[in-house]
Amino acid sequence: MSEKRTEISEFGEFGLIDHLNEKVQIKNSSTLKGIGDDAAVIDAGDHVKVVTTDLLLEGVHFDLAYAPLPHVGFKAVAVNISDIAAMNAIPKQITVSIALSNRFSVEAVDAIYSGINAACEHYGVDLVGGDTTASRGGLIISITAIGEAKKEQVTYRSGAKVNDILCVTGDLGGALVGLQVLEREKQVFLANPDMKPDLEKYAIVSGRQLKPDARMDIIHEFRELGVVPTSMMDISDGLASEIFHISKASGVGATIYEDKLPIDKQTYDTAVELGIDPITCVLNGGEDYELLFTIDQKDFPKLEKHPDVHFIGHITKAEEGKFLVTKSGTAVQVKAQGWQHF
Amino acid sequence: MSEKRTEISEFGEFGLIDHLNEKVQIKNSSTLKGIGDDAAVIDAGDHVKVVTTDLLLEGVHFDLAYAPLPHVGFKAVAVNISDIAAMNAIPKQITVSIALSNRFSVEAVDAIYSGINAACEHYGVDLVGGDTTASRGGLIISITAIGEAKKEQVTYRSGAKVNDILCVTGDLGGALVGLQVLEREKQVFLANPDMKPDLEKYAIVSGRQLKPDARMDIIHEFRELGVVPTSMMDISDGLASEIFHISKASGVGATIYEDKLPIDKQTYDTAVELGIDPITCVLNGGEDYELLFTIDQKDFPKLEKHPDVHFIGHITKAEEGKFLVTKSGTAVQVKAQGWQHF
Repeated sequence: MSEKRTEISEFGEFGLIDHLNEKVQIKNSSTLKGIGDDAAVIDAGDHVKVVTTDLLLEGVHFDLAYAPLPHVGFKAVAVNISDIAAMNAIPKQITVSIALSNRFSVEAVDAIYSGINAACEHYGVDLVGGDTTASRGGLIISITAIGEAKKEQVTYRSGAKVNDILCVTGDLGGALVGLQVLEREKQVFLANPDMKPDLEKYAIVSGRQLKPDARMDIIHEFRELGVVPTSMMDISDGLASEIFHISKASGVGATIYEDKLPIDKQTYDTAVELGIDPITCVLNGGEDYELLFTIDQKDFPKLEKHPDVHFIGHITKAEEGKFLVTKSGTAVQVKAQGWQHF
Repeated sequence: MSEKRTEISEFGEFGLIDHLNEKVQIKNSSTLKGIGDDAAVIDAGDHVKVVTTDLLLEGVHFDLAYAPLPHVGFKAVAVNISDIAAMNAIPKQITVSIALSNRFSVEAVDAIYSGINAACEHYGVDLVGGDTTASRGGLIISITAIGEAKKEQVTYRSGAKVNDILCVTGDLGGALVGLQVLEREKQVFLANPDMKPDLEKYAIVSGRQLKPDARMDIIHEFRELGVVPTSMMDISDGLASEIFHISKASGVGATIYEDKLPIDKQTYDTAVELGIDPITCVLNGGEDYELLFTIDQKDFPKLEKHPDVHFIGHITKAEEGKFLVTKSGTAVQVKAQGWQHF
């Protein structure tokens, strides 16, 4: 008897997730949104709760050769808060589960939690539960974040409409470039332990990789300005990949302009130094944790002067596809890439 | 310069958790209960949400040498539902994060999810989100469960009062005895792969270990009978350990009676066969996922005839301590043990 064996790599991460989700059925009326957005949405009477979770593994998501333990703790919280932000909600609680091998001392655990507690302070969330266990391998951190919003404030990936303006916060590509620099310095150090890595020149990009900040500042500004984006998600897998998600969920197309894409000078210069195309970093670099969102044109004046919101393009009909207009005026089809862990 | 290094084993699991929790501060009014019970309690206007999470690792919490993949999936959900039950709440949603090495095929992942989906069906919960990632080691499953209750229905560990009756559901010790049998058969098989393990004789105890069922049936009966326990928790670390938790949280003592402790015949016989004291299995066996709760004496008539609720003792003043009265009438001090993963 031969049993069929299909490799996960044949499906890829998104393919596997789609495959698993096919069998999921929603039974409870309080489940307003299940799988398929940055967070689930659960009815809570006069408001909704949004819930998201992330599982981070040493050697897959972070490398303790260069990531300081407090930064690992902070980032583990921040990436979840970023998903709550992407729903236009305010984070309130997190649970933290952690698995540790005996390689870790109590002092090391304290260092991780100093970062977790700093992030709780920074984002105003309460650490309300979790699980602590032994690991036979490396460090594992699993965090669930819970946020709140009024039902009419929640933004889904599916709300983008033709002629909406595509916006991104901050700048993109820095986290990928930072990762490349850190990996390079690690190799230099491994080859010659006397070489002291000089990261000062790369402080911005390595900071983007090691200690990203979820854009809760933007969500609070949306509240103050009375803006509710028509769609939103956070940029964790790269701009191109996220544009595909919003286009698919909303049933629309998109056109973006190369000269509108925000890139930091250090990101640009370092990408060139590393021999990577800066625009590729912007389009396909992961882990920036900035926000991609669409607004109705009527809301443009409210955000027009915002120093950290960039208007990169607009939403088109689905049949018009997804295009990047280069600086020379050529329209190039956008390809999704995203991270492939498998 | 010498940096201090404290081993986690010096603290133990509970010691480490206490140490980490010292620094936690609650900032949000919607956090009704943070760390320190079976689940966190979050305000949701006219009701509350309860949230719990568990992180399960291959080689620590389950052994794929004898645990079938669908059972691993089912159990991962059930242990979280058990924590929701322990708050006297009804589970509604779960998130499932999973990390897999390339040792796992898509068919293996489907087998795990067949158990997860069966548990969702069985407990009436919706799978609303999660994370899928690569693992360099074994299988990792992290589940968060969310339940609902009216505020006045929620039961905490802290509500037990002097003269309340101590109750447990089902029978105890089976999961530990089942684990011992499975470990023994694994060793026999490793020594001689031609030996086919004969588990039929041990179907009940191995089932208790491999596929525990959270006692949601009891929670639904509480609703029908109009019973709200004064305190409750699930028995995951062993009866003795849980009695310590309830005593500490409620500021009370407890007296339990050996002849009232529920033990299944197969558990008893197998413990004797394995040379383990059956009462030790009942007191210190983990993973039974039964409920330990206290009721006011006025509620006794409502549960008196229940075939699966056992009245094992009563709550005393804190200064009277925690005692087990043996069949011969001797009062023996109860010692907490619980699981020590570290």
